[in-house]
Amino acid sequence: MRLALGLKEPGLVPTMGALHEGHLSLIRRSAAENSRTVVSIFVNPLQFNDARDLETYPRTFDRDIQLAEEAGADIIFAPTPALLYPEGFGTAVTVAGLADRWEGAVRPGHFTGVTTVVSKLFNIVDPANAYFGEKDYQQLAIIRRMHADLNWFGEIIGCPTVRDHDGLALSSRNSRLSVEQRQIAPIVPRTLFTLRDRANAGDHNAASVIEHGLALLAQEPSIEVDYLAIVDPETLEPVKEILPGSRALIAVKLGPIRLIDNLALLEPPQ
Amino acid sequence: MRLALGLKEPGLVPTMGALHEGHLSLIRRSAAENSRTVVSIFVNPLQFNDARDLETYPRTFDRDIQLAEEAGADIIFAPTPALLYPEGFGTAVTVAGLADRWEGAVRPGHFTGVTTVVSKLFNIVDPANAYFGEKDYQQLAIIRRMHADLNWFGEIIGCPTVRDHDGLALSSRNSRLSVEQRQIAPIVPRTLFTLRDRANAGDHNAASVIEHGLALLAQEPSIEVDYLAIVDPETLEPVKEILPGSRALIAVKLGPIRLIDNLALLEPPQ
Repeated sequence: MRLALGLKEPGLVPTMGALHEGHLSLIRRSAAENSRTVVSIFVNPLQFNDARDLETYPRTFDRDIQLAEEAGADIIFAPTPALLYPEGFGTAVTVAGLADRWEGAVRPGHFTGVTTVVSKLFNIVDPANAYFGEKDYQQLAIIRRMHADLNWFGEIIGCPTVRDHDGLALSSRNSRLSVEQRQIAPIVPRTLFTLRDRANAGDHNAASVIEHGLALLAQEPSIEVDYLAIVDPETLEPVKEILPGSRALIAVKLGPIRLIDNLALLEPPQ
Repeated sequence: MRLALGLKEPGLVPTMGALHEGHLSLIRRSAAENSRTVVSIFVNPLQFNDARDLETYPRTFDRDIQLAEEAGADIIFAPTPALLYPEGFGTAVTVAGLADRWEGAVRPGHFTGVTTVVSKLFNIVDPANAYFGEKDYQQLAIIRRMHADLNWFGEIIGCPTVRDHDGLALSSRNSRLSVEQRQIAPIVPRTLFTLRDRANAGDHNAASVIEHGLALLAQEPSIEVDYLAIVDPETLEPVKEILPGSRALIAVKLGPIRLIDNLALLEPPQ
């Protein structure tokens, strides 16, 4: 399928819709840095390993368009699945190593779905700059790797996570939390902040710092921890000693909802 | 690695060097159809499943440059392996189904190496037209699929196989045939021409036509047949009934050298 927007080096903000302040911060930054900004809205079936998650993924299209335009989007690209995946479609883009652990281990096929659709968007939009949130830190690392490995034109811009008043990282899936779950959820960022505080206070032993975080999470019985790790910011491999740039990654289940978050350690609070 | 030639919609002829009249026909066509033509010369280690084949692959770089320029190349892009595959490289582009059978079944990993490096070349060169020989018919079908699936700009142009006076398809690997083997090798195209003649004469039963071809090949004891098949020209799946466009594919071993060739059936000789 030949699809080309034909713009001169626009900014690109790929989204799955259900836009929140996190997305809008990406769109505003792109609008400030590029003469044109394309916002793609596509709930990509290829990256959902769980059919129920795909069904229940929040969809707020009319509102998304309004919010995106207010934030500075010039073009909304909202293709159908049939347009991006016509009959006979068979190509996949994969990133070995980086995509196998953490979210990749828990959600088989997820990152292949992400890297494949983002490859298509890169070719359709031909962006000078593409904006991704640090909230999905592993996704960002994988896309940086893929973008460099396959020599696409332009830059990948990672943007800081936007947090609610109580620290919870904004996520489209937060809308599916019950009122009670929403009150419990901030233990996730609180755990990360505690890890950062301990590292800044001089404890650079990753195992010791993680143990402390797990003890904190254990106080909340409705939280099930998928992983809490401290990793190299590029390879995402666990580190023994916390160094500047080392990143804490966390994934938990709270009822049926998975929450992920991450934080650079050995950096002062913003 | 950021690599961008920055040309305005050039033609691209990807090669592994050891240029022969087949390559030169692609370069001449590109030169006729595009204001600039880029010829890449890169013996891509990723697509060699056999280390000895990589070692012994013919390399005639100085001559290649001269021939390419005479044929109309404006730019020779001859990267080193370290430039295209720096440390940490981990991305692969794969095409399911199409790449699994025929050459894919015999040479595991081969087509992933091809599609990955061609993806890189598409992004580095940004061609309006990319030229590939029909000699490697499965490769051409896979690249067409990948190019459409990932929505690259531009067109894939398949070009007719160039044959020697006795019908043998030109191939860089032909230079490794002994004098004796070179005399035997034309049985490969002769078999294909026989299949085409039978189909044109009215025998459209694929199994019967293939059986005839295998009987012909069996007369030459030094030939070991990997496969002889009649397939759909797009999906490469075997057909029962030969239709216009149906393609005969053949791969044989002649001593240590593998020869492949293919021909559209139900078409008159050119």
